Amino acid sequence: MKIIENGGVTAAKGFSAAGTAAGIKYQGRMDMAMIYSEKPFRVAGTFTTNIVKAAPVIWDRDIVKGKGIAQAVVVNSGIANACTGEQGLKYCRETAEAAAELLKIKPEEVLVGSTGVIGMQLKMDKLKEGVKALSGKLKNELMAGNEAARAIMTTDTHPKEAAVSIEIGGKTVTVGGMSKGSGMIHPNMCTMLAYVTTDANIDGKLLQELVCENVKDTFNMISVDGDTSTNDTLLVMANGMAGNKEITEKNADYEKFREALNYVNTSLAKMMAADGEGATALFEVQVVAADSVENAKILAKSVITSSLTKAAIFGHDANWGRILCALGYSGVQFDPEKIELWFESAAGKMLIFKDGVQADYSEEEATKILSEKEVHVTADMKMGTAEATAWGCDLTYDYVKINADYRS
Amino acid sequence: MKIIENGGVTAAKGFSAAGTAAGIKYQGRMDMAMIYSEKPFRVAGTFTTNIVKAAPVIWDRDIVKGKGIAQAVVVNSGIANACTGEQGLKYCRETAEAAAELLKIKPEEVLVGSTGVIGMQLKMDKLKEGVKALSGKLKNELMAGNEAARAIMTTDTHPKEAAVSIEIGGKTVTVGGMSKGSGMIHPNMCTMLAYVTTDANIDGKLLQELVCENVKDTFNMISVDGDTSTNDTLLVMANGMAGNKEITEKNADYEKFREALNYVNTSLAKMMAADGEGATALFEVQVVAADSVENAKILAKSVITSSLTKAAIFGHDANWGRILCALGYSGVQFDPEKIELWFESAAGKMLIFKDGVQADYSEEEATKILSEKEVHVTADMKMGTAEATAWGCDLTYDYVKINADYRS
Repeated sequence: MKIIENGGVTAAKGFSAAGTAAGIKYQGRMDMAMIYSEKPFRVAGTFTTNIVKAAPVIWDRDIVKGKGIAQAVVVNSGIANACTGEQGLKYCRETAEAAAELLKIKPEEVLVGSTGVIGMQLKMDKLKEGVKALSGKLKNELMAGNEAARAIMTTDTHPKEAAVSIEIGGKTVTVGGMSKGSGMIHPNMCTMLAYVTTDANIDGKLLQELVCENVKDTFNMISVDGDTSTNDTLLVMANGMAGNKEITEKNADYEKFREALNYVNTSLAKMMAADGEGATALFEVQVVAADSVENAKILAKSVITSSLTKAAIFGHDANWGRILCALGYSGVQFDPEKIELWFESAAGKMLIFKDGVQADYSEEEATKILSEKEVHVTADMKMGTAEATAWGCDLTYDYVKINADYRS
Repeated sequence: MKIIENGGVTAAKGFSAAGTAAGIKYQGRMDMAMIYSEKPFRVAGTFTTNIVKAAPVIWDRDIVKGKGIAQAVVVNSGIANACTGEQGLKYCRETAEAAAELLKIKPEEVLVGSTGVIGMQLKMDKLKEGVKALSGKLKNELMAGNEAARAIMTTDTHPKEAAVSIEIGGKTVTVGGMSKGSGMIHPNMCTMLAYVTTDANIDGKLLQELVCENVKDTFNMISVDGDTSTNDTLLVMANGMAGNKEITEKNADYEKFREALNYVNTSLAKMMAADGEGATALFEVQVVAADSVENAKILAKSVITSSLTKAAIFGHDANWGRILCALGYSGVQFDPEKIELWFESAAGKMLIFKDGVQADYSEEEATKILSEKEVHVTADMKMGTAEATAWGCDLTYDYVKINADYRS
């Protein structure tokens, strides 16, 4: 597997992209992106489990669950087009129609996405101007993918992209993606917007199955604030242009592709957690030696979503009692007297809890470990062989600042 | 039902209390409290569901589940005596023994409670000195109850007490209580420490049943930060000294007593939510016209625990999309197109969401309503007749400040 530096949605063959400043809500920054494939792609997707679903989620879901074929994506930031009633759905169709006309494809082959404030209606005149500008500047270059990644940001502090290539039957297959998301991020859905493109030739049903399976270990294992958004969308688009023999079953080729997709999804998910609103650190919790993978996931997620633990990480305070507390209220049974807790970062590794009591460690050393940009906790449950990793971030003044004043 | 101003654990006949500064962890403030009853009382209780249980929880649970009879309570703040292994349990026994000797009762009749930092061992010399001081200054006066309520505080900004009296068969029956708690507060347990005394004559089993039922509508309906503590304890102590005919079944007398207990528990619970760490406002969410009480509770709790909604309340921002979002990810099924959302406070009441879209309201007016000390949201589900209320608070800079630096 080869990592493609600065690669994103345009890394795979046949995919072009663009970003533009349409002035939908934000001023003086890009707020619309387009992805286009020379050839129609098979599209797999997973969407928010929130029963309040934004209009674009409904539009895209119909395409994914219908033919599962499309050729372009149009995304805007600033306004979420959620809780917008019939009008909101009408606007999705109008956006798709505007793009379809310019790209000479069908409206039903245009996926749409929105992120931003809930409840406001899109400004369709500006959106249509944006679609026009985008379709005129589509490029199959890494820079164009970066522009698109930048255009879909809301409170994100930097664009999020990842891409890798693998060899399948002598053909180079590339998988690349972009995502945005920093608030309203929580397990049990696909965490705001993530778009992954690939030139792999893979059966549509198998791709959908793979995506549904893989989000459980990647996007669904992160949390910033426990709020599951109305707009969460992950789309994986495969146009087959790599020319590999079609992957139709879970063979060695499938396994290679699965690893590449997992790398891209994990990278994008971790970037979102690390760039959580107001965050100063990525908080990674690994549960090992649990009795089942399901329980390991519940335990790991319980710790990364604990407000008290997150605040302690912000304070570089080795307040391990909060971690133990969060494991304890997760609903999973274990023996607190038997487990071990470890802190780890670039600054070192230390045992902090063992045999039911605090281990003999130096607070000073612990603070040093907790002051790094990536902080890792290992909870060794001493029960079995299952493990899981979850990613979150610290809880900071800036999280409150951003969210107490988001709309104005 | 008569409300007793400034009443607390000493309002009921036969109960005395005291507070003292033992210097266990805090300096220059009271950190130990004692409650004592002239006659042994029947004690009912509920405890944290966290599987990591503090030593005093284990000690008290054994008494409640055993004979269900005791005569005194000793509580300290500053150190939680949680995750302290065998030593922690030994210290509970030593505390009970010290109090028993001075009060001339059995150690098995002394309940203990602790709140504060997890993982540190109690300083037994100071604790024993504290027990001695407390037993020498026990008083059956409202002021003494207030002192006890003050002594059990940690990050609380004020003591929390409530008391009422009712007439049962010509006898005056009094119910009074105190509680503390401001961080690590979350539904599904009994929210840190709450001690309720009553002179009612009521069967022990019936009292336990009532307490288990009543916490579901009171203490379990509040949340500050979603973290279920290791120490949560509610004890209800009934010494029978009011002289009423023993309540042994769910008759009219029982109903009167239930209402009095519910008043005290609801008052204490709301005080804890309003005094949540760093909070500037009590955030009350009432779900009406739901299809079942259980679903109404889930919906109400989902809104009060949403970080994004809590931050919006702090910012006095009528960001109703976050409320709708939190209802939507609660797991309860409903039709977002049908529900209505209302904001209300001392400054007025307004419809904010109807027919799937934003209602026609003034942002200025909404901000005025959200700037009060108690903010109320009503979610009208238009499904049935069930309702529930939950209480939380806003998420503020001070919450982060308090918790990023709690131990030092």
